[in-house]
Amino acid sequence: MQRYFVPETDWDNMNVTIQGDDAHHINRVMRSKEGDSVICNHPNGKAAICEISEIESSKVYLKIQEWLDTSAELPVEVTISQGLPKGDKFDLIVQKGTELGAHSFIPFNAERSVVVWDDKKMDKKMKRFAKIVKEASEQSHRNRIPRIMPMMTLSELIEESSNYDVKIFPYEEEARSDHHKSLGKIVKGLEAGQKLLVCIGPEGGFSANEAEELTKNGFSPVRLGPRILRTETAALYTLASISYHFEELGCN
Amino acid sequence: MQRYFVPETDWDNMNVTIQGDDAHHINRVMRSKEGDSVICNHPNGKAAICEISEIESSKVYLKIQEWLDTSAELPVEVTISQGLPKGDKFDLIVQKGTELGAHSFIPFNAERSVVVWDDKKMDKKMKRFAKIVKEASEQSHRNRIPRIMPMMTLSELIEESSNYDVKIFPYEEEARSDHHKSLGKIVKGLEAGQKLLVCIGPEGGFSANEAEELTKNGFSPVRLGPRILRTETAALYTLASISYHFEELGCN
Repeated sequence: MQRYFVPETDWDNMNVTIQGDDAHHINRVMRSKEGDSVICNHPNGKAAICEISEIESSKVYLKIQEWLDTSAELPVEVTISQGLPKGDKFDLIVQKGTELGAHSFIPFNAERSVVVWDDKKMDKKMKRFAKIVKEASEQSHRNRIPRIMPMMTLSELIEESSNYDVKIFPYEEEARSDHHKSLGKIVKGLEAGQKLLVCIGPEGGFSANEAEELTKNGFSPVRLGPRILRTETAALYTLASISYHFEELGCN
Repeated sequence: MQRYFVPETDWDNMNVTIQGDDAHHINRVMRSKEGDSVICNHPNGKAAICEISEIESSKVYLKIQEWLDTSAELPVEVTISQGLPKGDKFDLIVQKGTELGAHSFIPFNAERSVVVWDDKKMDKKMKRFAKIVKEASEQSHRNRIPRIMPMMTLSELIEESSNYDVKIFPYEEEARSDHHKSLGKIVKGLEAGQKLLVCIGPEGGFSANEAEELTKNGFSPVRLGPRILRTETAALYTLASISYHFEELGCN
């Protein structure tokens, strides 16, 4: 069944109104009729099966039939702080990261990031990311849409990091060392409801200075297997591993 | 250190010759000089640090300095049989799948594949995939380049599947069922050196007929977490989970 994330203001008791692009999607793309059902997601994470009672050109009115109690959210809140990558890789990371259960994304302006996200581009970029995460959330049956936070510098990210229970950063030097910290050990230590911050370097990796600053501020360096992953693959490896650990392996 | 995969015929005792595009890469892109070192990978999976002894315009001559005993290969041989997806998604799957340790790839002409790979396109496609897996192997420090096998139909794939120890297929219906088979249970049962075949449907998923045929022929349906993944994300989830399990969690 098709899913739509509906803003809080469009819920009223047993009635839901879908507007804008989503109303167009129901009307013109899905060619739904009165009496058809869709799933509406509330921003609080709940979802309900709703029946279409009336279709106007730019508004669709629905009645709640049944609240669902399924959750497709990871038990741990994982935030991906991604060093600004080249090209459209950030699009790929937010799309796949949403499918894989990320809670939030923070674009991180790293020392070796070669792209510049200036104020002029920022607004357009943020709107595109918001569209990607909404569509990926609907497609992957998420209960909530991940948040895209404003771009941060290293010092802003370190300040933000005080809000998290566990902080890690994949570090290539770590993958080469015999005494690397095991990602498994860190994930095993996570408890449901905890917040994990994963800081990922851009194409050129972290500078020695960044790695030192992160370590000093409680981030543990980790490796993600013995192979060297591209920057856009690191977030996907981390999220898939956490999903596998808690949702498929049942190690905890 | 830069890595190059060198065909068997270009190894002779303590001497290695790098030709073609890779010679151009050493000469013009890396601007290497005599006395510089690179890592050469032999098709048998071994790798050696080699010193450049002479540079010609289209050939680079090297001497083996030291054989390396590191391996970046997954302990289990994972073959991804991917239902032909739309657009350039197969490129993404072979690139990321190589980074994540896949042993081989099989393009699978599924019932719901909407694209057609005809003979005319096939040769060009296979050459592009070969280039992608070689470059991704070098970049991710693999010991061997994954193999791209010819496109197969369902019955050809089922015949091929007799060469594998364990066979699975992610199935959306499975993700919705309460009695789904746990991927963790299957991965836990794998032993080093075993061969795993993962069959992934295209955008529209498997038809009921395909799912039945696969099940009848020893493929276990699995889910990859409770979220619905796009076709190109399924291979990456599976490979990352297997890497995490054996290489980072050390569950076995």
